[in-house]
Amino acid sequence: MAAALELFSKHDAEDVSIDDVATAAGASRALVYHYFGGKQELYVAALRSAAEELQDRLRPVNGGTAIEGLAAGLTRYFDFVEDHAAGFAALLRGGPANRAGEVGEIVEGVRRRLFKMIMNQMQVSEPTPVLRTTLRSWIASVETAGLDWLESRDIERPTLERLLVDQMVALLGVASRHDGLAGGSLPELGRGPGELG
Amino acid sequence: MAAALELFSKHDAEDVSIDDVATAAGASRALVYHYFGGKQELYVAALRSAAEELQDRLRPVNGGTAIEGLAAGLTRYFDFVEDHAAGFAALLRGGPANRAGEVGEIVEGVRRRLFKMIMNQMQVSEPTPVLRTTLRSWIASVETAGLDWLESRDIERPTLERLLVDQMVALLGVASRHDGLAGGSLPELGRGPGELG
Repeated sequence: MAAALELFSKHDAEDVSIDDVATAAGASRALVYHYFGGKQELYVAALRSAAEELQDRLRPVNGGTAIEGLAAGLTRYFDFVEDHAAGFAALLRGGPANRAGEVGEIVEGVRRRLFKMIMNQMQVSEPTPVLRTTLRSWIASVETAGLDWLESRDIERPTLERLLVDQMVALLGVASRHDGLAGGSLPELGRGPGELG
Repeated sequence: MAAALELFSKHDAEDVSIDDVATAAGASRALVYHYFGGKQELYVAALRSAAEELQDRLRPVNGGTAIEGLAAGLTRYFDFVEDHAAGFAALLRGGPANRAGEVGEIVEGVRRRLFKMIMNQMQVSEPTPVLRTTLRSWIASVETAGLDWLESRDIERPTLERLLVDQMVALLGVASRHDGLAGGSLPELGRGPGELG
């Protein structure tokens, strides 16, 4: 599976054959077919495995303020980006002819999970439209920053993580000016979940 | 071409046949094959045509401050999103970080164009790493906000455009605190291109 993910991340899915995967994994072509059924199935299985590992890492940790929780979540996110550069890139690049299908669903699943985690940290159950689009945009920013970092590696990881946390605080400030309801979220970022009235 | 784009935007590319496209376009299957060669080619041609129209709309307009230029560019961007909801979704479906193969190249081309346009507006030729990742992240935010808006339509377009401009100003403020060089860009947003020393 790791071998498949590495191959799919480095090459267009069209250019990777089951034989390539079997060779890289030290398995027979028949075995790969037996377990996965075909290349598209193998590709989707590899992406799903990467997505599950990422989601495991993003399980919320109790205690601390929302902003500390966000910073800790980002660190775990970038741990994944660094440990599984190939998997992360494969997950976000998606498949050539399958953008809205299974691959798109996997990527959207990770985004929904992140969105929910942040909402929980902020103790918000129903986001306003402005807050919703702000959080979705920030998640897109984090993905883009992750890919940019893998390409360039010219920013220290802690610096990049602080930048993204500061961006979130600034974006929530903008949201609060546009939207009275979203404004309630900003001050609470500095409080622990138990401190809310 | 419009018919193809509409179909590809509403369905998985796998579920759209050349016959569907021919029927929707009122043309014969043979004619569609003659012009495009095959479904993947047709798909890529449809996306490329959408991307070219978007880039045409984003040609810079002279005069005004950088922030006015940015706001005007966003309005033209969302004009495209609104006029060609199907094309926009087809272009970006799979997510803001999608980049493999021909489709990825088309999407990346639009992003590079946007990036260059913003850099020109800001009179910056070589971005620092912090500014580069900030601008790329903001572009991802704009794409995500566009898709979110098409899905929900619960924010007025002018409100959303102002939100995104305000986000850019806030993000440049964050970048300036992280990065002395990027800080120079923020005050210049309010000036016209000719007013820089």
